[in-house]
Amino acid sequence: MAVITPSRRVRRTPFTQGVEAAGVAGYTVYNHMLLASQFRGLVEDYHHLKKYVQIWDVACERQVQIKGPDARRLVDLLTPRDLAAMRPDRCMYIPVTDQNGGLLNDPVLLQVGPDTYWISIADSDLLLWISAVAACKGFDVNVTEPDVSPLGVQGPRADDLMARLFGETIRDLRFFGVGRFAFQDHSFLIARSGYSKQGGFEIYVEGEENGMPLWQALFDGGADMNVRAGCPNLIERVEAGLLSYGNDMTRENSPLECGLAKYVSPQKLTSCFGWRALAEELKTGPKQMIRPVSINGTVPSCDRPWPVLAGGRQVGQVTSAAYSPDFDTNIAIGMIAASHWDAGTALEVETQDGMRQATVQEHFWI
Amino acid sequence: MAVITPSRRVRRTPFTQGVEAAGVAGYTVYNHMLLASQFRGLVEDYHHLKKYVQIWDVACERQVQIKGPDARRLVDLLTPRDLAAMRPDRCMYIPVTDQNGGLLNDPVLLQVGPDTYWISIADSDLLLWISAVAACKGFDVNVTEPDVSPLGVQGPRADDLMARLFGETIRDLRFFGVGRFAFQDHSFLIARSGYSKQGGFEIYVEGEENGMPLWQALFDGGADMNVRAGCPNLIERVEAGLLSYGNDMTRENSPLECGLAKYVSPQKLTSCFGWRALAEELKTGPKQMIRPVSINGTVPSCDRPWPVLAGGRQVGQVTSAAYSPDFDTNIAIGMIAASHWDAGTALEVETQDGMRQATVQEHFWI
Repeated sequence: MAVITPSRRVRRTPFTQGVEAAGVAGYTVYNHMLLASQFRGLVEDYHHLKKYVQIWDVACERQVQIKGPDARRLVDLLTPRDLAAMRPDRCMYIPVTDQNGGLLNDPVLLQVGPDTYWISIADSDLLLWISAVAACKGFDVNVTEPDVSPLGVQGPRADDLMARLFGETIRDLRFFGVGRFAFQDHSFLIARSGYSKQGGFEIYVEGEENGMPLWQALFDGGADMNVRAGCPNLIERVEAGLLSYGNDMTRENSPLECGLAKYVSPQKLTSCFGWRALAEELKTGPKQMIRPVSINGTVPSCDRPWPVLAGGRQVGQVTSAAYSPDFDTNIAIGMIAASHWDAGTALEVETQDGMRQATVQEHFWI
Repeated sequence: MAVITPSRRVRRTPFTQGVEAAGVAGYTVYNHMLLASQFRGLVEDYHHLKKYVQIWDVACERQVQIKGPDARRLVDLLTPRDLAAMRPDRCMYIPVTDQNGGLLNDPVLLQVGPDTYWISIADSDLLLWISAVAACKGFDVNVTEPDVSPLGVQGPRADDLMARLFGETIRDLRFFGVGRFAFQDHSFLIARSGYSKQGGFEIYVEGEENGMPLWQALFDGGADMNVRAGCPNLIERVEAGLLSYGNDMTRENSPLECGLAKYVSPQKLTSCFGWRALAEELKTGPKQMIRPVSINGTVPSCDRPWPVLAGGRQVGQVTSAAYSPDFDTNIAIGMIAASHWDAGTALEVETQDGMRQATVQEHFWI
C-alpha cells in the first residue's frame, strides 16, 4: 500500500497532531483535508466503537457560512427540503441539488445566528456552487469557510464522557438537537449527531487554537472509559446504512434514488434547483434505489463501483462493502434498478477479484 | 507514515493499474482522484525525469466540458484573460476568478469543437462553480465531466518517444500547441504541455478503455529509452517555479499576487467575475507576490503554511519547499509582502521543526 504524501494542499486539521500521536494507520482525503480511516485496524476500531467511546477528527466536514440579509433566501434555493421547521436549536439534513435534481452534496444545516447559517458539508466544494449562486443572483450575503472544525465524540459511552466536560444537561439534547456549551473560556455549538449509529455528538470547534486543548480534555476526561481516537468506520457505517457522498451517491443520483424522499417536499418543487426533474420523479418514482446487499464468499476492498448483474445484464452497482464480524457476512450498499430491488432477489456482483453471489436484503444490519 | 485507504470516492483512473504495477510508493488525492506522488523516491524520480522520459497518470486533471450555443459566452465570463486569440490548435492557461477576484482554479482551456470547450482543471470542483453560473444565467449549455483522462509524457526524451507512437510531425507542435493524432483505431488531442520544465506532452485520452493500451504502448515504445512511470515531482516543479493550486495559491489570492498579471487583460475588466477588484489591484499593484525563497539548514516536509518573518513580524508564508540536489540548497515558493519581496532580502521561515534563515531570490532555479 502506498503512503499518503504530505502537502499544504491536503490540509492538516486542528486535531492532526492528536491523530498522529494516537498512531493513525490510514488516511483518506475529504474536502482537501486529512481524514483518518483507521487506527488499530478496521475490525479492532469497529469493536471498540460499538463498546466504548471514540474521539473523531472530522474537521473535514467543513462549514460553508452564509451570512447576510439574503441568507435564508439563498439557503432555501439550495434544497428541496422544506425549511419551515428550521430553528437555532435543531440541525437539519438537507440534500442539495443541481439544476437537474442531481445531488451536489448531502450536508447538515445549522442556523447559528440571525441571518447566519452553517452548512456542514460532505466531500464536494459546495462553497463554489453556493458562491456562484450568490454572485449571479445578486444576493446580499457573504459566503465563506469559517475557522470551524467539527470534532466527533461517538460510541455508547459518549454521553457519559460529554457530561463530564460539558455538564449533565448535555444528556438532554435530542437527536439533531443543538446547544451552546461552555468549555474553558469558550463556548461551542454541540449537536447530537455524527456518522455512526452508536450515538454521540459533534462539537463545532471555533478557532483552530482551541482544537488540541479540547482533544486533550476529552482524552483526560475519558481516561477510565477506554477512550480512543477513532474515525468513521467502514464496517459500522455500512451495517447502519449510512450513505457516503462520493461513494454511494454522486451528482448522477437524485435524492429519491438515495432514499431521501422525505427530504423532498412537494411545496418546494416550484423553487429549488432541479425542482422540475424532482417533481417528475416524485410522480413516476425513482428508477433505481439504494439497497442493502449481502455478498457471499470473500470480497476485496471496494475501491471502484462493482457492477451488479442479473442474468448477465447490469441492474445496478455496489459502491461500499466490508465483512461484518457481528453479522458474519459481507455487507454492502448498492444502487439497484427497480426491477431487481425487492428483498430476496438473487444477484451477482462483479468485484475486481471475480464474480460473487449476492442477495438484496430487507433492512440494513441494525 | 499512514497509508492511503481505497474507496470509490477517491477515484481510480484508467491508468491506475499501470501505476500500481510500476510500484507507486506515495499517493496524494487531486480532484477526488488518485495522483501518484513518488515511485522510487522523490530524488531518484527527479534525476530520472531530468535525464530520460516518464509517463505520468494525470487523469486527475479532470475536464469540465462546456458545450452549447452559449459556451463561448460562459467561458468568457470565467476568466480575466482575453480569449480573442483562442483557436482549436492552441490551449490557453486561464486564471478563473470569483466575484472578489480570488483564484478559483488555474486551468488550461481547449477548444475541442464548435461550441465545445474543455477546461482542464487544477484541484477544486470548478464544475460546480461553472454549473451554477450556467444555471443562474440561463445559458444554453451543457456542463459535464466527460470521460477524458490526460496522460503526461515528460522529460528530455519525450519528443523521441512520442514520435515513435504518433509520427514525426508531433515534433512540430509548439508549446501549448494542440493537434489530433491517431493511435490504433482512435485519435486523441495532444498538447505540448505538462507540469514540468523538462518538456513534454499531454495526451487527452478519450474513453477509459483506451487508457491501459496507450500506457502499455508508451512503455513498449520507450523500452530502450529507460522510460519509467513518473508523476509531478515536488523538487523539479519548485525549481521551475511551477505553482500548485491549493498549495501556493488559493481563493485567498488574486492572479496578480500569483504573478499572473499577463493573464489579466484590461479590456476584460468590465465583464468577468471579480473585474472591479482586479481593476483596482491593477492600478495599485498587488500587496504580496509569489517569490522564490532559499532556506538554510534542513527542512521538513512543507505540509502546512510556514510563516515568513522579518524582525519578528509576519511578512508572508512559504507553501512548498524541498531540498534540490542539483542546486544544493533548500528551494521554496513563498507569498511575500511587497515590503520584503526584493531579491536578497533576509527572512526567517518558521517550520514545524523550528526557525530557519532564508533569502528571497531573483529567479527560480532554472
